Amino acid sequence: MTIPPKYPAKQHALKVKALLGLSEGLLYIESEKTVYFPNCDQTRPFRQNRSFYYLTGCDLPDCYVTFDLAQEKLVLYLPPIDDDDVMWSGMPLLPEEAMKKYDIDSCVYESDLESVLSSAATIHVMEQNKRPLPTTVNAKFLLDAIDEARATKDEYEIAELRKAAEISDHAHLQVMMNRKIETNECHVHAESVYHCMRSGSKHQAYDPICCAGTSASTLHYVRNDQPMLGDGQLLFLIDAGAEWNNYASDVTRCFPIGGEWTKESLEIYTLVQKMQAETMQLVRPGVHWEDLHLLSHKILVQRFLELGIFRDPQGKPVSDALVQEVLDSRVSVAFYPHGLGHMLGMNTHDTAGRANYEDPDIMFRYLRIRRPLEEGFYVTVEPGCYFNKFLIEDALKKPEQAKYIDQDVLERYWKVGGVRIEDDVLVTADGYENFTKITSDPEEISKIVRASLA
Amino acid sequence: MTIPPKYPAKQHALKVKALLGLSEGLLYIESEKTVYFPNCDQTRPFRQNRSFYYLTGCDLPDCYVTFDLAQEKLVLYLPPIDDDDVMWSGMPLLPEEAMKKYDIDSCVYESDLESVLSSAATIHVMEQNKRPLPTTVNAKFLLDAIDEARATKDEYEIAELRKAAEISDHAHLQVMMNRKIETNECHVHAESVYHCMRSGSKHQAYDPICCAGTSASTLHYVRNDQPMLGDGQLLFLIDAGAEWNNYASDVTRCFPIGGEWTKESLEIYTLVQKMQAETMQLVRPGVHWEDLHLLSHKILVQRFLELGIFRDPQGKPVSDALVQEVLDSRVSVAFYPHGLGHMLGMNTHDTAGRANYEDPDIMFRYLRIRRPLEEGFYVTVEPGCYFNKFLIEDALKKPEQAKYIDQDVLERYWKVGGVRIEDDVLVTADGYENFTKITSDPEEISKIVRASLA
Repeated sequence: MTIPPKYPAKQHALKVKALLGLSEGLLYIESEKTVYFPNCDQTRPFRQNRSFYYLTGCDLPDCYVTFDLAQEKLVLYLPPIDDDDVMWSGMPLLPEEAMKKYDIDSCVYESDLESVLSSAATIHVMEQNKRPLPTTVNAKFLLDAIDEARATKDEYEIAELRKAAEISDHAHLQVMMNRKIETNECHVHAESVYHCMRSGSKHQAYDPICCAGTSASTLHYVRNDQPMLGDGQLLFLIDAGAEWNNYASDVTRCFPIGGEWTKESLEIYTLVQKMQAETMQLVRPGVHWEDLHLLSHKILVQRFLELGIFRDPQGKPVSDALVQEVLDSRVSVAFYPHGLGHMLGMNTHDTAGRANYEDPDIMFRYLRIRRPLEEGFYVTVEPGCYFNKFLIEDALKKPEQAKYIDQDVLERYWKVGGVRIEDDVLVTADGYENFTKITSDPEEISKIVRASLA
Repeated sequence: MTIPPKYPAKQHALKVKALLGLSEGLLYIESEKTVYFPNCDQTRPFRQNRSFYYLTGCDLPDCYVTFDLAQEKLVLYLPPIDDDDVMWSGMPLLPEEAMKKYDIDSCVYESDLESVLSSAATIHVMEQNKRPLPTTVNAKFLLDAIDEARATKDEYEIAELRKAAEISDHAHLQVMMNRKIETNECHVHAESVYHCMRSGSKHQAYDPICCAGTSASTLHYVRNDQPMLGDGQLLFLIDAGAEWNNYASDVTRCFPIGGEWTKESLEIYTLVQKMQAETMQLVRPGVHWEDLHLLSHKILVQRFLELGIFRDPQGKPVSDALVQEVLDSRVSVAFYPHGLGHMLGMNTHDTAGRANYEDPDIMFRYLRIRRPLEEGFYVTVEPGCYFNKFLIEDALKKPEQAKYIDQDVLERYWKVGGVRIEDDVLVTADGYENFTKITSDPEEISKIVRASLA
C-alpha cells in the first residue's frame, strides 16, 4: 500500500463521521492555545491537541477546525496575522500554503469562524472549549468517536509510528554503546535525548525513566540524577521513546551496568523475556488482551515457584493447581503491578483501551486494554518484574499472600531492582509486527556494554 | 561571603515584606499545579511558579506557602499523600524532611491551610489563584513587591546563576568543537542540550535558537531543522542557555560554518563585538540602561557609515553631526530591532525591568530595562545586527530612513544573516562581572571550528 503524501485528515474526518453515525451537524475542535507562564513572557511548551491534529495534520497553535457532516467539508481556521509576530518570527503560514500542506477542503482566517458557528444547527464539541459557542452544543459523542477512530491506525499513521520506533531503536543502542561515558543516570538520559534529537525528533513521547540499580523498582522514577557506580547496582533500566510528528514510541530496555549479568539478574531478565515472547506470539485480531495479561502473570508465578521466591505453604511440589492457587491469591501483582501493555499512538497511553481503574480485581485494575485486539491496533508489550519494598512489604502483611513468599529466597533478589522489556507492536490481519528492533537478547546486550567498557 | 546552605526563602520573605511596607496581613502563593493534557494521562511539563519558589526554594507541584507579616512566619503546605502515587512513585516528601530541606518556619499539609486563610484579616495574593479565598483579598501589591525583590540577586542566587552560566559555557564550546558532526541545525540543538543535560541541567532556560545562514535574521527562529551546508551559508547563530535549579543563563554565540570568516561576516561580527565591549565596560550601579542601549546604536551607525551601508544622502563625509542625524532617523532599528539586554534570573526575561512596549520611540519600545542599574542586577548584554528582509524593506519604504541606506553596499551583506553576541553580567558595587566565559574572539572561534573540521 502506498502512503498518501499528506496526513489523511479528510479520511480521519469521514471515519469519525461513520463512528458518530450522524449525517448532519458541525464538528468543532480548537487547537492547543498559546499559553504563557504566570507573570512571564515565555510560553508553555506547545503540544498539539491530539483530536485537532487527527482532523487536520496541522501542528500550529490558536487554530480551529470544523467539519460539516452533511456537506463533508473540512475547514481549517488560522489565527489573524500579528504584525509584531511577523517582525520577530517571520511570516506565518498563509491559507494558500495551508491548502497545499494539509488535506483539508478550505482554509480561512479565524474571523470567518463566527458566522459558520452561528449558522450551525448542532455543534459537536470536545468537552472543553475556550471560545463561547452560540448554538446548541453536544459534547456527548465527539470525543468517544475520535478516540475510537484513533484506535485503528491507517497506513500514514503506521509510517509515522515506524519512524518513531526506528529513532528509539537507535537511541537505545547508543545508550548501551556509550556505557563508558555514562556514570550518572543523567548521562543516560542525555545520551538518549541527544540521539533522538539528532534524528530530528525534537520531543520525547514522555519523560524518560532512567534508573540505576534498585531505583528501577520505582515504576515512575523521575529523578534521573543518581550515580551509576554505587555498590551492588546490577541493572540499568531505561524507558524512553521518541516522538515523530506527534506519533509516539515507547521502549524499555535493561542492561547490566558492569556488562555482566549476575545469576539473579539474569534469572529475572529471562523470566520477563519469556513473559514477553509468549504473550507477543499470541497477538492477533480477536485475542482478548486480558487473556494475554493473565498469561504473563501465570508465567511469572510458574517461574517464581521454580526459583523458590514463591512456594507452597505446605511444601507441596509445583503443579498446575498450585500455579492457579498462587495466581488466584494475586500475590504476583506485588511483583508485577502494571498491565502487560497499552494502546500507543499520538498519546503514549493512547485512546480507546477501555481501562477500568475501579476494577476490584487488583490484577486488572491497571491494565489499560480491556478488549479484544483488532487489526490496526498498535500496542506495547511490556511485562515487568520488580522488587519494590513498598509493594512487597504490603503483600507480606497479608497472610493469604505472604504464605506463598519465601523471604529467605526473596532476600537474594532485592538487588535486582526491576526489569521491564517493552516493545511496540502493530496488530496485523493475521498476527503482529514488532516495530521495536533494538535487541533484547541478554547475551547480545552484555556484549555491547562490555565492548563499550573495554 | 559564604553561601548559605539552604535557599534563603525566609530572607526573601523579609525582603518582600520590607518592599511591601506592611506590618500585618498574610501573603499567600500557590505553587504550580499538576495539569494534564486534554484527554490524556500525561502531565504538562512542570515549571515551578517563580514567586512561589522565591519564597520557599521548593520545586514541588500542588503546594502552598503563606507568610504572616506580623509574626514573620513562613509556612509551607504539602499536598495530601495519595496512596496510588506512593505505589507508582514512592513516598513523597514528608513535613519533617521539608523542614530540613527548606528555610521555612513550619511545614504542614494542605488540610491545615483553610483555617489559616479564614482567620486572616487581609490576604495578599498574586493575581491568579486556583483556590477560592475566604476573606478580604488584596492583589495589588504582592506581585510588584516580589518582582522588585527578585531584581537584586543575593549570594545564594548568584551562585546558582554562576553555575547555570558555567554549564552554558561548556555547551557552547562543545557545539563549536563538534562542528564536524553538525550538518543540520538539529545537530547543534542536540549537542547543546546534550552537554547541558550531562552537566545536570535537565531544562533549558528557553527554547534554543539554532540558525544556519540567513535564518539568523529571524530573531525568534524556532525551526532548528534546516541543513547547514547550503550554498552561501556563512554563519551559525546559537542562542541557548541552561537552567540550574530554576535559575537561567542566556548566551548567544556565532561561528563561521566553514571555519573561516568572510570579509563581510567579520566586519559585522567585529562591529557587534565593539557594541558589546563598549557598553559592557560602562556597566555599574547608577548607569541608565537606556544610555547604554543608545550608545550601542551609535556605534552601529558610526560603523555602518564607515562600511558604506549607511551614507549621507548628499555625500557628505562622516561626522558626529551625521551620526546623530542618522541615529535620529531611527533607521538603525531596522538592523538592530531588539534591546541591548534584559534582566535575567529565574525567568529569562526577568522581573522589574520596567519595559514600555507602548513607547512611541521605536528605538526603545523593545528595550526591556528602562531604569538605572543597581548592584545585584543580573543582565544580558546582547547587541546584534541583522539583515532581515522584512524589517529592512520596511525601512526602504520610508524616504526619511531609506535615504541613508546604500542599497548597492547593502547587497553584499544580506548573506551575513545576523550576528548577536550575548553574555550574562552581574552588576557589582563598582562595576560588573561577566559570568559568561566562553570565548567570543573571532580568531579563537575560527580556530576551534577549523580544528573540528580538520
